[in-house]
Amino acid sequence: MKKFKRNERIGALMKMFSERPNHIFSYNYFSDIFNSAKSTISEDIVIVKKIVEDFNYGEIKTIAGAAGGVVFTPKIKNDEVVKIQEELCDVFSDEKRIIPGGFIYMTDVFNNPYYVHNIAKIIVSMYENKKIDYVVTVETKGIPAALMTAREMDVPLVVIRRNTKVTEGSTLSINYVSGSSSKIQTMTLSRRALKEGSKVLIVDDFMKGGGTVRGMRDMMREFDVEVEGVAVVVSTKEPKKKLFNDFNSLLLLEKVDEENKKILIKPNRLEGFKE
Amino acid sequence: MKKFKRNERIGALMKMFSERPNHIFSYNYFSDIFNSAKSTISEDIVIVKKIVEDFNYGEIKTIAGAAGGVVFTPKIKNDEVVKIQEELCDVFSDEKRIIPGGFIYMTDVFNNPYYVHNIAKIIVSMYENKKIDYVVTVETKGIPAALMTAREMDVPLVVIRRNTKVTEGSTLSINYVSGSSSKIQTMTLSRRALKEGSKVLIVDDFMKGGGTVRGMRDMMREFDVEVEGVAVVVSTKEPKKKLFNDFNSLLLLEKVDEENKKILIKPNRLEGFKE
Repeated sequence: MKKFKRNERIGALMKMFSERPNHIFSYNYFSDIFNSAKSTISEDIVIVKKIVEDFNYGEIKTIAGAAGGVVFTPKIKNDEVVKIQEELCDVFSDEKRIIPGGFIYMTDVFNNPYYVHNIAKIIVSMYENKKIDYVVTVETKGIPAALMTAREMDVPLVVIRRNTKVTEGSTLSINYVSGSSSKIQTMTLSRRALKEGSKVLIVDDFMKGGGTVRGMRDMMREFDVEVEGVAVVVSTKEPKKKLFNDFNSLLLLEKVDEENKKILIKPNRLEGFKE
Repeated sequence: MKKFKRNERIGALMKMFSERPNHIFSYNYFSDIFNSAKSTISEDIVIVKKIVEDFNYGEIKTIAGAAGGVVFTPKIKNDEVVKIQEELCDVFSDEKRIIPGGFIYMTDVFNNPYYVHNIAKIIVSMYENKKIDYVVTVETKGIPAALMTAREMDVPLVVIRRNTKVTEGSTLSINYVSGSSSKIQTMTLSRRALKEGSKVLIVDDFMKGGGTVRGMRDMMREFDVEVEGVAVVVSTKEPKKKLFNDFNSLLLLEKVDEENKKILIKPNRLEGFKE
């Protein structure tokens, strides 16, 4: 069987950790792949730990016990958070994005793997200390950012639908009032989608009135599931008092001035990041 | 400024390549991060190249010229393809997934970051030789697999909607006939979503009659965009003659036997993978 050099093992380890953050890899898994003794791999892990620290990628933790192993927990620092926020603000504030009615075209950004990965990096770092079992979103535009967040957390994504689908089996539906339009809307979710008693993080692309997120929170109650946090990418400054107020927003949309073609969008100051 | 050891640079390079496959990184980008001469980085790349080859991760290519640099192109081998396909078949053939009417509950798999990443690995390898500008899907269940494919290809994702949304700006809508239900349905896409003359890969979760994919192909024609390929995760054996026949399916659903609670789903033999 093939043997690998230290350099090669380090490279392969970094690839595996990067592709599956927050996943616990057992030492056995690595020694099978590398055809190496666990003691050798322990030495490799020490080096990988240093790389992750030196480049501010986050942390490599060793977990003891039968279900133990090694896990990479990404955690970015404040300067990278601000850099990501500013880049997003730059993109969003392009005047060509203004749509009649004071809306902004944001779909391309929310579907761009590079941007949603960056968004996910911030969200995952914010909730790094919470135990999350699922990331929950509602279709459609928030799905990519929510998926990337779920991926970084190594947990499943759950997507609430607007309509009942036959392929979902038995479903639970609720009605809610949209905060911005005051219309009554429906959301529906397969009864199989969530385990009772679990903890979820809600992720969505945009929040104005807060009605949708409140609907999601209500739906989570029906499933006997606890909401550990709510992260949205963009929230509007107005209305200040929303139907749901306990959330973290990456960006704050202050104003869309159709006449002068100006979009005012700013990074939101986020707590808990190391300088 | 901080200097890094070779081991550390190799590890960081592997992380960057893994997080953004098919993205061209310039030598300048790396020498800024590592504070190292380009000649040093060239030597690092030689080692990374060997790692990627030795572990069958794909290929590291050096691209000359002003817009040149280094790119990691993932390409998995046939045995890994088969392993991924078999794992998916195992999951999907669980009798508890049967929904009255002969449907199968698949949503959790299509929303699971681990499974959709594996699905994307196969799809990206299949179309590795084609120049793709966008991955296109239709909401909702196919979005995660399509996003992961777009991410591995380093291209944007485009999501066709079922209804017109005000936040999409001016849109183009088409009507199409669903192959399985013969109902007339609508799909709609922002006129900004695709650049004329570009090449796209269509990715979807499930195909029965083929009507939806044919609708997508028709919509791409309206945008003057070329469809370079169609990849679906699961296609049904019946009807054999679908409204669209030029596609690659990862899995073939042969039969759902409600009475005896048996699901027959098999890996599809895919061409072009190295043994």
